Amino acid sequence: MFNGIYTPIVTPFKEDESIDFEKLKFNLDIWGKTELDGIVILGSNGEFIYLSHEEKLEVVKFVIDNFNPEKNIIVGTYCDSTIETIKLTKEMAELGADAALILPPNYYKGGMSEEILYKHFVDIADESPIPVMLYNMPGNTGINLSSKLVARLSTHPNIVGVKDTSGNIVQLSEIVRDTEEDFSVFAGNAGYLLPALVVGARGATLALANIFPEDCCKLVNLFREGKIDEARELQLKIIEINYLVTGGMGVSGLKYALDLLGYQGGMVRRPLRPLTDEKKSIIKDALVKYGALKE
Amino acid sequence: MFNGIYTPIVTPFKEDESIDFEKLKFNLDIWGKTELDGIVILGSNGEFIYLSHEEKLEVVKFVIDNFNPEKNIIVGTYCDSTIETIKLTKEMAELGADAALILPPNYYKGGMSEEILYKHFVDIADESPIPVMLYNMPGNTGINLSSKLVARLSTHPNIVGVKDTSGNIVQLSEIVRDTEEDFSVFAGNAGYLLPALVVGARGATLALANIFPEDCCKLVNLFREGKIDEARELQLKIIEINYLVTGGMGVSGLKYALDLLGYQGGMVRRPLRPLTDEKKSIIKDALVKYGALKE
Amino acid sequence: MFNGIYTPIVTPFKEDESIDFEKLKFNLDIWGKTELDGIVILGSNGEFIYLSHEEKLEVVKFVIDNFNPEKNIIVGTYCDSTIETIKLTKEMAELGADAALILPPNYYKGGMSEEILYKHFVDIADESPIPVMLYNMPGNTGINLSSKLVARLSTHPNIVGVKDTSGNIVQLSEIVRDTEEDFSVFAGNAGYLLPALVVGARGATLALANIFPEDCCKLVNLFREGKIDEARELQLKIIEINYLVTGGMGVSGLKYALDLLGYQGGMVRRPLRPLTDEKKSIIKDALVKYGALKE
Amino acid sequence: MFNGIYTPIVTPFKEDESIDFEKLKFNLDIWGKTELDGIVILGSNGEFIYLSHEEKLEVVKFVIDNFNPEKNIIVGTYCDSTIETIKLTKEMAELGADAALILPPNYYKGGMSEEILYKHFVDIADESPIPVMLYNMPGNTGINLSSKLVARLSTHPNIVGVKDTSGNIVQLSEIVRDTEEDFSVFAGNAGYLLPALVVGARGATLALANIFPEDCCKLVNLFREGKIDEARELQLKIIEINYLVTGGMGVSGLKYALDLLGYQGGMVRRPLRPLTDEKKSIIKDALVKYGALKE
Repeated sequence: MFNGIYTPIVTPFKEDESIDFEKLKFNLDIWGKTELDGIVILGSNGEFIYLSHEEKLEVVKFVIDNFNPEKNIIVGTYCDSTIETIKLTKEMAELGADAALILPPNYYKGGMSEEILYKHFVDIADESPIPVMLYNMPGNTGINLSSKLVARLSTHPNIVGVKDTSGNIVQLSEIVRDTEEDFSVFAGNAGYLLPALVVGARGATLALANIFPEDCCKLVNLFREGKIDEARELQLKIIEINYLVTGGMGVSGLKYALDLLGYQGGMVRRPLRPLTDEKKSIIKDALVKYGALKE
Repeated sequence: MFNGIYTPIVTPFKEDESIDFEKLKFNLDIWGKTELDGIVILGSNGEFIYLSHEEKLEVVKFVIDNFNPEKNIIVGTYCDSTIETIKLTKEMAELGADAALILPPNYYKGGMSEEILYKHFVDIADESPIPVMLYNMPGNTGINLSSKLVARLSTHPNIVGVKDTSGNIVQLSEIVRDTEEDFSVFAGNAGYLLPALVVGARGATLALANIFPEDCCKLVNLFREGKIDEARELQLKIIEINYLVTGGMGVSGLKYALDLLGYQGGMVRRPLRPLTDEKKSIIKDALVKYGALKE
Repeated sequence: MFNGIYTPIVTPFKEDESIDFEKLKFNLDIWGKTELDGIVILGSNGEFIYLSHEEKLEVVKFVIDNFNPEKNIIVGTYCDSTIETIKLTKEMAELGADAALILPPNYYKGGMSEEILYKHFVDIADESPIPVMLYNMPGNTGINLSSKLVARLSTHPNIVGVKDTSGNIVQLSEIVRDTEEDFSVFAGNAGYLLPALVVGARGATLALANIFPEDCCKLVNLFREGKIDEARELQLKIIEINYLVTGGMGVSGLKYALDLLGYQGGMVRRPLRPLTDEKKSIIKDALVKYGALKE
Repeated sequence: MFNGIYTPIVTPFKEDESIDFEKLKFNLDIWGKTELDGIVILGSNGEFIYLSHEEKLEVVKFVIDNFNPEKNIIVGTYCDSTIETIKLTKEMAELGADAALILPPNYYKGGMSEEILYKHFVDIADESPIPVMLYNMPGNTGINLSSKLVARLSTHPNIVGVKDTSGNIVQLSEIVRDTEEDFSVFAGNAGYLLPALVVGARGATLALANIFPEDCCKLVNLFREGKIDEARELQLKIIEINYLVTGGMGVSGLKYALDLLGYQGGMVRRPLRPLTDEKKSIIKDALVKYGALKE
């Protein structure tokens, strides 16, 4: 069973858009020494969508070889077709991934009925050598995995959790209500970490934990110790910078924040572009206000 | 300052669609003896939109004359134009309303810029003899009052709170963060009451409190006493029936539930229609499951 | 049966927001001498939503008394409840309206099923002394009247047409396909007048015809004469200014354009506001480019 | 310059989900003898999204080797990253494709600003050895290419057209208005073929032309000959079946219709599934009603 705080790590690129393994290693060393329970490779913040099949294998192998072996490693194995997703999941299992985090297929949006989605995930879970975690991310996919569908899928012995990034706290509550205690309901964004915990989320996978792993873990600890007022204070504090490095400016914003905070974010891959100077100074100001950076 | 649990009371109608004041009185007597901090007259659940100007005055006068005088009374005074809203708000103030709850204008959706909305609410607040509470209800209006706009409006001395029914828990958190301590941030739906409280909401206006006033108050009390696990249990329990009597089946569902539980819901006014038998039995089953009704 | 070009006339206001009947009369005199087949009073561009019941009666009476009696007059009689809509429709019939144009109820958006909408319009049509025209305006109401629903309603003897402002040309085609020849399918926006005509629309109700009644009529004539290339040229020409005075800047834009072109637009009523200087110059430039105004 | 009717051909699969080249050949032979101006390989109806890189090359090579050499061949070369799209476009050029049809990147929906999209397409067009056609398909991608963006991109010498499947006829009109005569504005769905032609579209890429190539071409011919009434009649006739094999039941519906009409649709690839019996009979009934099939 998975719980606690995970971060979907960024994939740094060089100026020529090739993967920058040195920078990746640099960051892994830092994250490995934090309280994080684990990381997600090839998540949305890892620009998985822009990596070739070969690059995906290479990155995962590299991270598994170079990351603190005591922490969990979840790998995003989404492909568009059922067949390719199964194939990639098997490959990642062989490389040593602890679990696979899988988005719903989403190109033919009008055709993705609950029945189609149910069968797709069951087919994958049946064949996957490692546990499957559902990944609900309607902002990027245009498809929502309803609480009813997640509850139905949760009865499959090889489907062990869900990362819900819908931001719909009622839906997340329904999932907690309708799944077993050992089903890992994860919040997908730090903007509603405390609300998710209060309704029963077991953990979270947070872009913000790339830059503030300790604060994300601290919020969970405060909540578990019943220090609700302090937890709220921290929750309200992180919302602004969290928005900037997720919905606001996306991976480009997150990578720039990493650069400012002693990590090595590296370049993004096209079509993404580096931040403009104007956007850079918004990030900078927010980090100063947060107290993470001196003026 | 307003806080605690309010319920937006239903307006019972007779078979001929005229207002059923007897039934209204019957319900007021029950609600008046509960722990509720107050009620909202002419809210969405009061079918305010289907009442004529004269009927609105009549209903509010009747309720003020017949409700427990120790409890607060907030009145929905939305009209489409700025002028009419000001006029109705003044009339309700004269009748004795403690505050006005006001939706944003929403017919010309494309034209309702933040600037237009800001000026509209300021014009009203300037002239209103009673405190104004903003009412954000994008599901019905198609317009969202952003946290930025609400924070800006909160600096007006006569704008004292917001009821946010967007369901966006991050937005609600931002409002708490960006407004003063004495600004009444209210959740607008029982589906996320506990998450709202945990991020700092002062209270809530809940359709569900029409039928379960005590359970809604109990959830707030459990939270304030730090009994988070019990609060969560209650939160998860109320979600199902809450959905049915709000988004699921609306006022028709709520009125039928009132009938089943010893209140007098009465008829809805057209275009609304009574529930079909099939929908009635869904409500009934949910109330049995809840423990509020015997099979 | 209704066909040809109608314009939903604006309601000019004075600085104090009262109705400016002189300006209204001034415009009526001009429109009365054009080729227009008729006008719509209390349409979206007439700011009907901001007029009181009394004002609505007053405006309609005034227009009927002052407009070219050879032209048709359709009146918007939307109210939120079924009862009030029936009542207002009867009053407008008594004043001499030729037909009623009626929006769907739209406050409880989640509850407005096709069955609810069907019954609502049937109840109204059963009682209306004048023919009813459905008014589909999802941009303002958030509710779409599907082609299936419109076809079903079209079999009622007192429902004689639809103004479809959805912009969905396939839906409009389906309505033509599924209704009788004498059902008046009207386009609701000049942006797609020619496409609507080519799939069988009988006419149109166009905000643009407030300022360019003759060009709108000309486009219909060109189409009817088989001069497709000339019709296309005119269609492409009108799109820009049409956008500005409808979706782009709304009634405020339309009224300013009227002022510039020798009509008397007058003020808007709050929450609407006059255009900023920047927006005014965009309208002006577009009218110059159109050839309707000298630089 | 491209004009006339193209069809985005389906990719038939065997029961084991491998590509069925025999069935593909069978269909190519039929389409090759029609009036079609060309075909699109690896379009949405070709399930390109479910094909591996190797399969894409294989399919395109096979089709080019086996299709009537007098007709044009456009190839869908969308990949998520800019780099991969450029690479695939070059490979398809080498195989002999006449042009590349390219969707916008769409995973990080919130980050796909007009500037990001503009640079992406320019980068590709700069490097592509063959002309580029933009492919606007918001229903599947969640991203709309605005008329302003398309007009801006149309000035690039290697961007020669757009297939617009938004269904927004005003947007399509604006594109015609704002681009040069030799820019190929194509409708993307047969539901609005005639409206698109009347505002100036040069041609269309139509799923429906998989099953009714001749009727699609006939509609264009009727329009060009000025036979507007006959064109309208045909337009209204094709809407129903067109809806079923596109938005209604998607590729599964289209493949089943092909099977019924003497083509060989073959299987779909998962997550897509074959039609249920109930849906099959809806398709069948529609084809009978159309006159393409005996009862």
